[in-house]
Amino acid sequence: MSSTVGQVIKCKAAVAWEAGKPLVIEEVEVAPPQAMEVRVKILFTSLCHTDVYFWEAKGQTPVFPRILGHEAAGIVESVGEGVTDLQPGDHVLPVFTGECKECDHCKSEESNMCSLLRINPDRGVMIGDGKARFSINGKPIYHFLGTSTFSEYTVVHVGCLAKINPLAPLETVCVLSCGISTGFGATVNVAKPKKGSSVAVFGLGAVGLAAAEGARVSGASRIIGVDLNSDRFEQAKKFGVTEFVNPKDHDRPVQEVIAEMTGGGVDRSVECTGNINAMISAFECVHDGWGVAVLVGVPHNDDVFKTSPVNFLSERTLKGTFYGNYKPRSDIPGVVEKYMNKEMELEKFITHEVPFSEINKAFDLMLRGEGLRCLIRMEH
Amino acid sequence: MSSTVGQVIKCKAAVAWEAGKPLVIEEVEVAPPQAMEVRVKILFTSLCHTDVYFWEAKGQTPVFPRILGHEAAGIVESVGEGVTDLQPGDHVLPVFTGECKECDHCKSEESNMCSLLRINPDRGVMIGDGKARFSINGKPIYHFLGTSTFSEYTVVHVGCLAKINPLAPLETVCVLSCGISTGFGATVNVAKPKKGSSVAVFGLGAVGLAAAEGARVSGASRIIGVDLNSDRFEQAKKFGVTEFVNPKDHDRPVQEVIAEMTGGGVDRSVECTGNINAMISAFECVHDGWGVAVLVGVPHNDDVFKTSPVNFLSERTLKGTFYGNYKPRSDIPGVVEKYMNKEMELEKFITHEVPFSEINKAFDLMLRGEGLRCLIRMEH
Repeated sequence: MSSTVGQVIKCKAAVAWEAGKPLVIEEVEVAPPQAMEVRVKILFTSLCHTDVYFWEAKGQTPVFPRILGHEAAGIVESVGEGVTDLQPGDHVLPVFTGECKECDHCKSEESNMCSLLRINPDRGVMIGDGKARFSINGKPIYHFLGTSTFSEYTVVHVGCLAKINPLAPLETVCVLSCGISTGFGATVNVAKPKKGSSVAVFGLGAVGLAAAEGARVSGASRIIGVDLNSDRFEQAKKFGVTEFVNPKDHDRPVQEVIAEMTGGGVDRSVECTGNINAMISAFECVHDGWGVAVLVGVPHNDDVFKTSPVNFLSERTLKGTFYGNYKPRSDIPGVVEKYMNKEMELEKFITHEVPFSEINKAFDLMLRGEGLRCLIRMEH
Repeated sequence: MSSTVGQVIKCKAAVAWEAGKPLVIEEVEVAPPQAMEVRVKILFTSLCHTDVYFWEAKGQTPVFPRILGHEAAGIVESVGEGVTDLQPGDHVLPVFTGECKECDHCKSEESNMCSLLRINPDRGVMIGDGKARFSINGKPIYHFLGTSTFSEYTVVHVGCLAKINPLAPLETVCVLSCGISTGFGATVNVAKPKKGSSVAVFGLGAVGLAAAEGARVSGASRIIGVDLNSDRFEQAKKFGVTEFVNPKDHDRPVQEVIAEMTGGGVDRSVECTGNINAMISAFECVHDGWGVAVLVGVPHNDDVFKTSPVNFLSERTLKGTFYGNYKPRSDIPGVVEKYMNKEMELEKFITHEVPFSEINKAFDLMLRGEGLRCLIRMEH
C-alpha cells in the first residue's frame, strides 16, 4: 500500500448529489491525510438510519454533494503528521464522534462527548483546515460525520478511529461502529440492569435489539419489547426479548400496562425510538424506588418532555446517553473483544448484504423497514 | 419508668383542633403500644415546614383533631408484642417514613420507600388496628405521619424508629429525624459530588443548607446558593456556600447565569424548594456529559416538569430522592455517628429554642421565615 502514501488516491465513492436522490458511484479523488488525520481503506460499511435521515435532509441543513456513511470497518492506508497511535495496516472502526483525550469531557470518566470532535452533522469539511479531502474535477465533495465511509478510501481525524484487534472479522464488527454499540452500551453502561431484573426496550429496530442484547448478556430475566409493529416480535426473540407489548393493542397508556405486568414497573427501561411519547412512557414505566430509564433515540428539536415531578420524587432516575457512553478510542476496542470472547453476538444483526455497486438497494430496504443491518461490501 | 408499662399514660400534648388555629396544650391519654409498636418519651422536637403545611391543611385532606410533629428525639418507655430490636431506655429518633425490612423496597439496596410504612399524611391512626393511641375523654385524637411528636409521650411503629448512640445529645441530633437528613442525604447519597467539583443548591432553607453541608463535607470547591431572598446569603456562608445567585437579579433564566459562571454548568445540583420552575432550572443548569440534578422539594400535585429531551440526550441525569435515600433504621444511626465523629455539623441549624408550652411561637417564627430550626424542649 505504501505506493499511495502522500499521493492523491482515485477510487470509487457513492456520492449523494442531492437530497433524496439515489447515490451515484463516481470516481473521486481522495487527498492525503493532513495533520492528525488518517486515510483509511474501507472494506465494509453498513447503512444506519442516520445516513438516510441526512440524505433525505428534511429539516436538516442540506450539505450536498456529500459522501454519506459512518458505520464501517477498514485498514489504515497512511497517516498524517502528528499521528502516533496508528500506522498503516492497523484495523480500525471509524466513529461519528471522537475522543481527543485532552478536553474536559475526555478527561471525565463520566462523559464521551468530546468538545473537539463531538458529532456535528452540519459540518462537511475536516476540522483541521476547514476543507474537504474528497473532490471530483477539483470541486469539493463534502464529508459526513467526519467519516464518509461510502467510499473505498476516506480521511478521518485520528480521534475518530478505534484501533481494534486485527483478528476480528471486519465484516461483522463493522456494526459496532455506530448503532449496535449505541444500544448495547445504553444498557450495559448506563441502565446497568442487575442479574434477574426486568428491562423494557422501546423500539425493536437494530438499536433497540442491541439494547435487548445488552439486557440479555447482563442476565435480565424479563425483557419486555415495545413496538408499534408486531411483525418485529418474532425476530426480537433471538435477542432475548421474552415478552411483547404493542401499545396499539391497549386502550390505556403503555406505562400502565407494563406496571401491571411487573407489579409496579420494570427495573430498567431503554428508549430507542426518538418518539417523545415513547420517551415519556419509558420513564413512567420504571418502578418507583429504584427504576432507571435511559433515553437513546434522537427526538425532534421542538419536542418537549413532560411528566409529573412526583415521578422523580418517588426515586426514579432519567438519564440520556450518546453512543452508549462509549469513548471511541478507549472503549470500542474492548467491545470488539467482548464479541471475540463470545460475550455478545453480532451476526444476528446483519440481515442483508449487497455489493458496493448496489448500495441504493440498502436504502430501499431501510425505507421499507426490512431487516436490521444491510452490510455493504466494498469491491476493491 | 417501668411503673407505666402496660398502663395508659396521661401527659401533655399540643393538639391541633382545627386547621390553622393555634395548638392547645391538653392533657391526653396515651394507650400502651400494641403489637410492633413502641411508646416513646419525647425529650426534644423541632418544627418542620411539613407540620405547618398539614396544620394549614390548604388542599390536603384535613385530619383533626390531630397531634402534629415528626422531627424529634426521645427514649423508649415501653414496647409492644413482637418488638425485639428496642427496649425501654433506648434512645431513638422517630421518622415519618419507615423500614419494615421485609418488602421489596426494604430488600432493595437502592430504595428507602418501604411499602408497608411509606409516608402517608392522610392516615391518622396506627396501621396495626386502624385506631388512634391518643384520646381525650375517650374521643380519639389523630396521629400525624406515624410520629406525632408534639406530645410528651407518643406511640410509633417499631419500623419508624432509629435506635441511636445513647451518648448523642438528643437536643441536637433530633434535627436528623427529618429535614437535615433529607438535604444532607440528597447530596451525599444521591448527587455524590466529587472532591473539587461544583454544586448548585436551590433554596437556602434548612433542607437546602443541609444539602450545602453535604457538598461541603464532600469537598466540593464551589457551592452556588440560589434563593429569591438575598437575606439568606450571609447565613449560608456558614454552610459552605461560596457564591450566590438571586434569580430576581437577572433578566435571563438562572440556568443560563449558572452555565456562564461555571463554563457550561455545574457538576451537580440539588433542588430544595419544591417550586416547579426551580426544578427545571436545577436540571438545566448541570453540565452536559456528566451533570446530575437531584430533586428534593415536594411539588404541587398538578405541576408538570417540562424540558427539551435533548437535555437528557446530552448525558444529563435527573433523579429524585425521598428522605435523602436513607433507610431510617439501617442508615440513620450511622448519620448520628457522623455527627459524633465531627464529620458533619448540626448545631448551626438550630437557630431558636422554645419550651413546649410556647410551641406556637415556633409556628410564628416559621410563618415569618425566621431562622432554620426552632428546637422545642419538652418539660417533663
